[in-house]
Amino acid sequence: MKSWYSKDFKVGVLGGGQLGRMLMQEAVNYDIKLCMMDKDPSAPCSRFSHEFTNNDILDYEAVLEFGKDKDVITVEIENVNIEAYEELERQGKKVFPQPSVLKTVRDKGVQKNFFKENNLPTPPYYLVENKAEISKYEQEFPFMQKMRVGGYDGRGVQALKTLSDLDKAFDAPSVLEKFVDFEKEISVIVARNENGEISHFPVVECQFNPEVNLVEFLFSPAQISEAIEEDAISIARRTIEALGMVGLLAVEMFVTKDGRVLINEIAPRPHNSGHHTIECNVTSQYEQHLRAILNLPLGSTKMLRPGVMVNLLGEPGYEGNVKYEGLEDAMKIPGVKAHIYGKAQTKPYRKMGHVTATAPLLQEAVDKARKVQEIVKVKA
Amino acid sequence: MKSWYSKDFKVGVLGGGQLGRMLMQEAVNYDIKLCMMDKDPSAPCSRFSHEFTNNDILDYEAVLEFGKDKDVITVEIENVNIEAYEELERQGKKVFPQPSVLKTVRDKGVQKNFFKENNLPTPPYYLVENKAEISKYEQEFPFMQKMRVGGYDGRGVQALKTLSDLDKAFDAPSVLEKFVDFEKEISVIVARNENGEISHFPVVECQFNPEVNLVEFLFSPAQISEAIEEDAISIARRTIEALGMVGLLAVEMFVTKDGRVLINEIAPRPHNSGHHTIECNVTSQYEQHLRAILNLPLGSTKMLRPGVMVNLLGEPGYEGNVKYEGLEDAMKIPGVKAHIYGKAQTKPYRKMGHVTATAPLLQEAVDKARKVQEIVKVKA
Repeated sequence: MKSWYSKDFKVGVLGGGQLGRMLMQEAVNYDIKLCMMDKDPSAPCSRFSHEFTNNDILDYEAVLEFGKDKDVITVEIENVNIEAYEELERQGKKVFPQPSVLKTVRDKGVQKNFFKENNLPTPPYYLVENKAEISKYEQEFPFMQKMRVGGYDGRGVQALKTLSDLDKAFDAPSVLEKFVDFEKEISVIVARNENGEISHFPVVECQFNPEVNLVEFLFSPAQISEAIEEDAISIARRTIEALGMVGLLAVEMFVTKDGRVLINEIAPRPHNSGHHTIECNVTSQYEQHLRAILNLPLGSTKMLRPGVMVNLLGEPGYEGNVKYEGLEDAMKIPGVKAHIYGKAQTKPYRKMGHVTATAPLLQEAVDKARKVQEIVKVKA
Repeated sequence: MKSWYSKDFKVGVLGGGQLGRMLMQEAVNYDIKLCMMDKDPSAPCSRFSHEFTNNDILDYEAVLEFGKDKDVITVEIENVNIEAYEELERQGKKVFPQPSVLKTVRDKGVQKNFFKENNLPTPPYYLVENKAEISKYEQEFPFMQKMRVGGYDGRGVQALKTLSDLDKAFDAPSVLEKFVDFEKEISVIVARNENGEISHFPVVECQFNPEVNLVEFLFSPAQISEAIEEDAISIARRTIEALGMVGLLAVEMFVTKDGRVLINEIAPRPHNSGHHTIECNVTSQYEQHLRAILNLPLGSTKMLRPGVMVNLLGEPGYEGNVKYEGLEDAMKIPGVKAHIYGKAQTKPYRKMGHVTATAPLLQEAVDKARKVQEIVKVKA
């Protein structure tokens, strides 16, 4: 059998964005040959893959053709041609996360039903086909409306607080989720390999930018009670087990004001809420994903030091060739590490990079991260 | 002025080996476009550079042509065409380390004279032109004989313990260095940017494999007295200052049994004795090199945790397509991180990769590293 580091063992990654790029940085350590496909010829991975195929991951033939000479196939974004992805599994390729997992996750309606069927706690919800159907539930506002498919990076999600918000509701198949009066949003990343070994990262806390529903700050470790920590970890582990999934799963959860932990949503790949693991944990989420899909022993997830991650988002009002104002000043702060994704063009709220600030104490890391957010501006 | 992260700002690296590969992994974080040149089309960097030029770094025209569209030029190996390297500096390119530094360092005779002229402590020595000349000093054996040029990775260096060793002496211009009865070998990596900012990494301790004169183990931090630590750091900082060098400099030193610190030799680039900084320090030597040559603020070199580095050398007796025996078992040990350089062919004592073991206490890291050395075998 070919070993995973041999010259002709290739791992195919559908998607060539920043997650693929950080995956690549780790793959180099183990000489794992990652081959990326992305329809953008200047995608963040275009220069740093073992091979880069410039084609559309939503195209059936392209995905099938791409998979032909790969030994393992994975994704760095859920939105791939699922029929071709399934066909590759049928052909006997190792396809992780499995197509069945992607199908469960990409439709938020199916995802919610999956939680319910497996007794995984999640806020109550209705499934609606269109806007008109929403008025049936007018007695039960407020809701979060989440489009069942096609949402990404905060798009396709909005609050419907009162009936007057009905006008702006998406006219598409959606999940109507009872609005949760939460105290915190937390996330646990878990991994599982083919042997069934499961490993979780410490719980982190996410602070969203309410305007665009994107993670703005991430704190590691989360400031939560031990009971909530145990709950969150147990839920995350049960979720990956119930999915029977191989790979990395991010489980985003609410902590309600009365101390319950409820799943918000899940993502079966490296995740924004795990970027800090590069600096803060013995094994990063990227290395763990590779270990999982290659059925290698999972790495230690031990926290080395507290850290805070800030996304570097395109400043509203700017579009064009990117300029990073203040980046060099940020580099003067000890323990501040930037990750610039190599996107040539910025636009409002586009994820252009992130910064992780670490320190012996979380509060120091928070102070550094706030300073970074103050001084670094992504403009054009 | 072009910013260092802009699309058309290119850094040229002469050489495409493992040091370049690790440099590349860090360059990705800051979207620095590293372009490598190496005559081996399958060099470790061939797939992971922004651009890879397959040409000979010893060829005058090739180096000159390569430098044409680069904004900054650096090396990952000293052995480059120095005339072309100088010509690029004359043309007004930023060339770091400067050609004058390479010229001082690549000839070990010039290097030793430089130490003497600058009052940098180093063992006493003679310069000889050939083998015959060595017998002049027969009263003063034992010596280390170091060929003035062309030695690399332990080659071109040997002990001449007694007159009977004269037979095997290199018949080439050499440094005859008085044999030092040393207690330890240590190393300090220092960096200096164009602004003149200087920063040093903590002192580390190297254990050599006497058979092939290659670093076998590296311990961070070094187990030395505070006085010796201060001496070593001061010597390293004075050395980079005396060179007026921009970039990263590894200063390898002996600690004699009577507590003196003497320079053994220096290398003006990322170095084997700094691999562990990837896992063990806030900023790695690779990131620091990039910061230095781009005149960015130097990063914190603070130690995060103790670590031990073991080189993965090709097992004697094996040559051919590489196989890493026991690697997966090593990956089970928490805190063990492998770096496989992606060389397809192994041969005896070839540097094929390294492993860094980290732990809260140095002794634990030592135990892990010894275990790794026991179980991982690089065979064909």
